Amino acid sequence: MTIYDWHTGPYPARVRIALAEKNLQSRTRFVSIDLWKGEHKTPEFLAKNYSGTLPVLELDDGTLIAECTAITEYLDTLDGAPTLTGSTSLEKGLIHMMSKRAELELLDAVSVYFHHATPGLGPDVELYQNAEWGFRQRDKALRGMHYFDAVLQTRPFVAGETFSMADITVIGGLIFAELVELAVPEECQALQAWYARMQERPSVKNRVTMSEPV
Amino acid sequence: MTIYDWHTGPYPARVRIALAEKNLQSRTRFVSIDLWKGEHKTPEFLAKNYSGTLPVLELDDGTLIAECTAITEYLDTLDGAPTLTGSTSLEKGLIHMMSKRAELELLDAVSVYFHHATPGLGPDVELYQNAEWGFRQRDKALRGMHYFDAVLQTRPFVAGETFSMADITVIGGLIFAELVELAVPEECQALQAWYARMQERPSVKNRVTMSEPV
Repeated sequence: MTIYDWHTGPYPARVRIALAEKNLQSRTRFVSIDLWKGEHKTPEFLAKNYSGTLPVLELDDGTLIAECTAITEYLDTLDGAPTLTGSTSLEKGLIHMMSKRAELELLDAVSVYFHHATPGLGPDVELYQNAEWGFRQRDKALRGMHYFDAVLQTRPFVAGETFSMADITVIGGLIFAELVELAVPEECQALQAWYARMQERPSVKNRVTMSEPV
Repeated sequence: MTIYDWHTGPYPARVRIALAEKNLQSRTRFVSIDLWKGEHKTPEFLAKNYSGTLPVLELDDGTLIAECTAITEYLDTLDGAPTLTGSTSLEKGLIHMMSKRAELELLDAVSVYFHHATPGLGPDVELYQNAEWGFRQRDKALRGMHYFDAVLQTRPFVAGETFSMADITVIGGLIFAELVELAVPEECQALQAWYARMQERPSVKNRVTMSEPV
């Protein structure tokens, strides 16, 4: 299978981590789509993913799966033994809720801040910006960090007792926050301690070097 | 189990349709949260769902599951025979992709238009509006309708050969579009024909009366 992504992208990181957690890197070819050149907005790429976002998974028969959650569902259930998206109904519900909340309240908010209230990918790619909206989303992301800090004061992982897709989404949020120099507030000790633990996981630690674009 | 929702809300409709598809209405108590009074933004409700959105599912042991996709995953897999979220990895991947795309490109876009570029839920609830962003999202939703029209020219349902969560999300988008008087463009014949068929499904047709707030 082929992953179209960009090696330092925060959304691509989510799927790279999922691939490593499932030991599927060796079955994957990585094709670079250069975000800084706007290659994700070309007609050729939009034919692969209408939304013009990375990453996209292409199966050997040409089937295309976009959206991190959808790709993670696919990868995690391939071997019939899901470890990232839940085994029981309750686990599935809680993991999907927390992963979506991590998008809404953190990762997507940081992304909007980057694309709208900073130079983003540069004037050739950012054809429309709404700075006021971007700064609102930055503030939302900072509140989101406090929310996830409160969650992580009560349990070891974002959706409960085990590592899941929800942790990966928060990791994506903090990777993006680092890129835009949005620091995790000092008082968010539980979030910081959790993130330090996450960065020791091989799937997180080696995500770039494990899969340099070919 | 208890669903906190509002009987005419487009997001609540997604879960009401899923409940009806799974024949779970009779096991469900519906509790009204009045959107027009901003009851979804009170501290009591925010303790149930940090994001302040409807619907929320509360299990009999007090466990809370928010976010339509997460609730649908939970409900659909309760009986071990998923019909809405896919059985195989490939089905799961495609359904999650198309449902997320329906949120991004249609439902969420209409929602932002409503809350930011129209009076929305009124001045007591809409404490911040960004009209320019709202109008951009309206235009995005109209483009999204053309996208889903093109999809439905090639297959009978949004994610393939059978009804799924992805259809429900597009239905949510068109319910919201009707509420804000955003008409489906006349040239989107395949989308209109599909929507007419969807409105004949009992789960869609009877979603309000089947479950009046108690």
